[in-house]
Amino acid sequence: MIIVLKPEATKKEIKHVEDKIRELGLKPMLSVGKERTIIGVIGEEDKARLQPFEAYPGVESVVQIQKPYKFVSREFKKENSVIKIAPGVEVGGNKIIIMAGPCTVENRERLFNIAKGVKKSGAKVLRGGAFKPRTSPYAFQGLRDKGMKFLFEAKEEAGLPIVTEIMDPRDLPLFLKYADVIQIGARNMQNFELLKEVGKTKKPILLKRGMANTIKDFLLSAEYIQSEGNNNIMLCERGIRTFEDATRFTLDISAVPVIKKLSHLPVVIDPSHCSGIWDYVAPLSKAAIAVGADALLIEVHDEPEKALCDGPQALKLNKFDTLMKEMRLIAGAVGRSI
Amino acid sequence: MIIVLKPEATKKEIKHVEDKIRELGLKPMLSVGKERTIIGVIGEEDKARLQPFEAYPGVESVVQIQKPYKFVSREFKKENSVIKIAPGVEVGGNKIIIMAGPCTVENRERLFNIAKGVKKSGAKVLRGGAFKPRTSPYAFQGLRDKGMKFLFEAKEEAGLPIVTEIMDPRDLPLFLKYADVIQIGARNMQNFELLKEVGKTKKPILLKRGMANTIKDFLLSAEYIQSEGNNNIMLCERGIRTFEDATRFTLDISAVPVIKKLSHLPVVIDPSHCSGIWDYVAPLSKAAIAVGADALLIEVHDEPEKALCDGPQALKLNKFDTLMKEMRLIAGAVGRSI
Amino acid sequence: MIIVLKPEATKKEIKHVEDKIRELGLKPMLSVGKERTIIGVIGEEDKARLQPFEAYPGVESVVQIQKPYKFVSREFKKENSVIKIAPGVEVGGNKIIIMAGPCTVENRERLFNIAKGVKKSGAKVLRGGAFKPRTSPYAFQGLRDKGMKFLFEAKEEAGLPIVTEIMDPRDLPLFLKYADVIQIGARNMQNFELLKEVGKTKKPILLKRGMANTIKDFLLSAEYIQSEGNNNIMLCERGIRTFEDATRFTLDISAVPVIKKLSHLPVVIDPSHCSGIWDYVAPLSKAAIAVGADALLIEVHDEPEKALCDGPQALKLNKFDTLMKEMRLIAGAVGRSI
Amino acid sequence: MIIVLKPEATKKEIKHVEDKIRELGLKPMLSVGKERTIIGVIGEEDKARLQPFEAYPGVESVVQIQKPYKFVSREFKKENSVIKIAPGVEVGGNKIIIMAGPCTVENRERLFNIAKGVKKSGAKVLRGGAFKPRTSPYAFQGLRDKGMKFLFEAKEEAGLPIVTEIMDPRDLPLFLKYADVIQIGARNMQNFELLKEVGKTKKPILLKRGMANTIKDFLLSAEYIQSEGNNNIMLCERGIRTFEDATRFTLDISAVPVIKKLSHLPVVIDPSHCSGIWDYVAPLSKAAIAVGADALLIEVHDEPEKALCDGPQALKLNKFDTLMKEMRLIAGAVGRSI
Repeated sequence: MIIVLKPEATKKEIKHVEDKIRELGLKPMLSVGKERTIIGVIGEEDKARLQPFEAYPGVESVVQIQKPYKFVSREFKKENSVIKIAPGVEVGGNKIIIMAGPCTVENRERLFNIAKGVKKSGAKVLRGGAFKPRTSPYAFQGLRDKGMKFLFEAKEEAGLPIVTEIMDPRDLPLFLKYADVIQIGARNMQNFELLKEVGKTKKPILLKRGMANTIKDFLLSAEYIQSEGNNNIMLCERGIRTFEDATRFTLDISAVPVIKKLSHLPVVIDPSHCSGIWDYVAPLSKAAIAVGADALLIEVHDEPEKALCDGPQALKLNKFDTLMKEMRLIAGAVGRSI
Repeated sequence: MIIVLKPEATKKEIKHVEDKIRELGLKPMLSVGKERTIIGVIGEEDKARLQPFEAYPGVESVVQIQKPYKFVSREFKKENSVIKIAPGVEVGGNKIIIMAGPCTVENRERLFNIAKGVKKSGAKVLRGGAFKPRTSPYAFQGLRDKGMKFLFEAKEEAGLPIVTEIMDPRDLPLFLKYADVIQIGARNMQNFELLKEVGKTKKPILLKRGMANTIKDFLLSAEYIQSEGNNNIMLCERGIRTFEDATRFTLDISAVPVIKKLSHLPVVIDPSHCSGIWDYVAPLSKAAIAVGADALLIEVHDEPEKALCDGPQALKLNKFDTLMKEMRLIAGAVGRSI
Repeated sequence: MIIVLKPEATKKEIKHVEDKIRELGLKPMLSVGKERTIIGVIGEEDKARLQPFEAYPGVESVVQIQKPYKFVSREFKKENSVIKIAPGVEVGGNKIIIMAGPCTVENRERLFNIAKGVKKSGAKVLRGGAFKPRTSPYAFQGLRDKGMKFLFEAKEEAGLPIVTEIMDPRDLPLFLKYADVIQIGARNMQNFELLKEVGKTKKPILLKRGMANTIKDFLLSAEYIQSEGNNNIMLCERGIRTFEDATRFTLDISAVPVIKKLSHLPVVIDPSHCSGIWDYVAPLSKAAIAVGADALLIEVHDEPEKALCDGPQALKLNKFDTLMKEMRLIAGAVGRSI
Repeated sequence: MIIVLKPEATKKEIKHVEDKIRELGLKPMLSVGKERTIIGVIGEEDKARLQPFEAYPGVESVVQIQKPYKFVSREFKKENSVIKIAPGVEVGGNKIIIMAGPCTVENRERLFNIAKGVKKSGAKVLRGGAFKPRTSPYAFQGLRDKGMKFLFEAKEEAGLPIVTEIMDPRDLPLFLKYADVIQIGARNMQNFELLKEVGKTKKPILLKRGMANTIKDFLLSAEYIQSEGNNNIMLCERGIRTFEDATRFTLDISAVPVIKKLSHLPVVIDPSHCSGIWDYVAPLSKAAIAVGADALLIEVHDEPEKALCDGPQALKLNKFDTLMKEMRLIAGAVGRSI
């Protein structure tokens, strides 16, 4: 940590800051410049970070040098983490995993139909929501418990592990029973109580980036989970809020190499929610493979016109099948497989 | 709702859309332009909104005309809502209410000291967090249950009703017992399960705007609460995420007149969290009064240097006292009082 | 400047950086931490800033400590700058200056009518565009040279100095002849060739903030002007691009205290362009006075319905008159006058 | 265009709007809903767009249906435009064109060295700036006229056409003489006078997207050029301003399929400026190929450590050579070549 003093800071103010640093068991290192004095803090930055140095008289600003997260950082673990979802289904290795399915579980038959369809095309995980976070209270809120059971049946029927979103810590037992991967949605990325709860389990977690959260925030939310003991975390980029309104959100594709540099955790891209329009899903999926994503989460529906949620962004089964073939070619071109 | 068709839409595709509209009990109204055909949907837009018309063949886009929220809208209720917090303490009337206190409850003595201080200067509500949503898992997480009790004691001691943040629906009984106003923080603005739970109570709710949420999203979250039966809602603008990094967030001061136009609910401004730096709090507070806010939520601390949370943005007691005097003058200039 | 090295940086890499620093006539100051080494650069940061240290092997990041601008900074000049526009019309002193007029000059009669109207209500400067930057090539582009002459005539007629926007360095002679204040619009804030040209004159410049520019960028653009010799600069906040679409732009009201802290230059607020809707102009104007702005730039029209440009955001003359009265009350409450 | 009336709009107000529509030679089409009346405007929307209907009494909002641009739209021209830069070098066809070179021209030898290097690896166009838009007035501003001559010599020497940025309309003759492609930088995307000037020539134009501009704004700026007669336009996405600060800008990769849907113009991606860090350039370049870009603009330097501008984002020659090989594989996987 670097503490930058105001040009007019007095000797007494500077000493006051130095004293506090020493009190924390750290070492201050003064550097008297022409315009300003700065103090380097030598030692574990974590201790210093909890002090409100900006509130000290004479202090202009504080610059953090060390990363505020630890367990999820690449410095903590050099090699890539590989998350096991089911026998033979791992995210973070050479093989890119495609997770596909409807936005929401609507009824048993439709779910089975979609599950079999995506499996046939090569998807390795079935996605589908039973509990749905909807911006409007008047939108379909999901089949909830019944939806969870349908998902479990579809899993048995199609032989695909399932990923589904949790919204309330009180539902955790249900998710531990039925889900293979628990999804934390973008709107709950900073629902810290929920993060702590899933951190106490060993279930693989798919953590989605909040629409207004920096990558630093994102890694700190992952740190919440891992610091509780669960290191089965996948990070999912799904678009951030910007001024551009031609797409629902702006896919921050650079997040993939940035996260890969900062963290050992695998990265997933959701090309459906960021665009909000089905005909952008194929080009974005291909870009996701090329940029280095470890998995994709794609919305697929057998009859988007009848979808109860997000129909406009769902791919039809035949289009998904074509996309799978195209993605395989790109995966090959970057030395990976699907 | 207006459904805009693609220039190349076929007659069959157009008819298909019209049929669906009629099926919903609504009336399609065709308007054949030179370049495009558009279909107006006459009737309750809510029904049409649940249909994924964008996924229909031949449809280019869908434009919503009616507001997606109802109970919180100015159209539903013309006159301003006034929320009663305690005897003689109402938000939304001519009197502007100042809520002040520390970011977090640290210990009983400090809380009492701050409570008495802000009361003396004219604050009408005591703020303070017992459960704290912190970006880092290594930051102070709040005194939790113990903090709630301290708040309750401070309320008795200083004679000030309290506002404090809930993060988990499982803590609701505790909040119903101790809090006068339940705050839903920015990070939980779209924690819909939590919104529904507080919506089932009659407690006044202070709902903070999410840092990436539009005013439309914000009103829809309020609608979640009101549609469950609780119409004691205050809307708090606290800064949104933008590219500007001179302040922690960008205070969207225009949100006040915009919300006042769209909704009957009172609007609160938090000048402390948006700026993140105490010396911007006074000018922003004055702007908040001038722009028409009904209440302010200000962080005040007796020794910001020792604060366990957000020290840099807290006003000292004497500075808060000066600010109160300045704000009274501006309130007078806009025909209100504090 | 602080150079942060990678944890794995070798001694040779560190020495290479130190050597370069010395070569620039600066002094490196090593601080060997537990996880990382950092190098403080003692001396004039300007020299170091031109070196691409991030491109050096072993370097993780570079943190700038000193401000990149000089002449416009508060450190360079402690007291507020006061810009003289005309006899008795100064921006930056105790008196708040209201600049008002139509978005664009439409014809002589209308301009005269508006000029007399705003003068009567107390405006001290007439605004109006002859050259108009319009997003669409099919929108009205301004009366250009003829508009400049009308402005000059209106100035004579109403006795108000004029502020008007330049878009092309080739038009500078015309502006030097007719304008009292040359406006650089938001879209040209980083048109550096234009900044240099107006920097070579002594005319007062009203520099508008670009819609995607940080306050740091803004001050650097002002530095372009001042470093050429012109220190008659006013900085105008007019809204930034964010995801919120209820207003055309988001007024960054915090920019006022932030700029006041960093720079000695006066700050102007344009409440018309940021909102885009006339009925938000009054509350935002009042907030601007309360937050500490030195001047306001308000669009006023005698018949907004017939405006050739931005009619929806123009105040009618009678509404402007009412607003002037309200603003005077707030100015008094903050110890200033209008 | 749809004009949405306020619920309380009077018959007289509605008639007033209808009369105005007819006066413009257009046809109003009333649709009386339960809550609101809306008026569809049948005919050429361009005419209606110039009217400030939002300023009319009783009007709540105006929704535009038709695109505000014409010549650059996909509706105007169905097939992709192909821009000829030099014999055998075309952008917009099956072959993807790689443009590479230094950020700025520093001296003749270095430029020649880089030019030969990128040519050897397969680049088809040489990039390099002679006039440099720099945020700080104290940063290197380019070799200007001399740089233009060096570029021209490098073109002869290496046999590569050149793309270079114009900043001032007064320099146009120089660019017409020396450049093969004239670049309009992000900061000048809405420098409308400059757009009109280059629009009067027949030179290929590479128009970069402004950092705060929507795709709609972008296409309107292209329309400025094309409506003057120059239809040799390439649109370059180079990153937009968002809250994320791990990269300098956020590459809006979705812009490629969005623009391809709305316009016939070819799309270029600049992976260097958006990231600002060289080791993100390779993954983003690969994503650009996969998503469907027609060309890339990549910064390459022989000694980034010594670069006078943007060294940290430049690829070394050997890394560029490796990237070219990787990109060829991906181009093949999407049915194209490089």
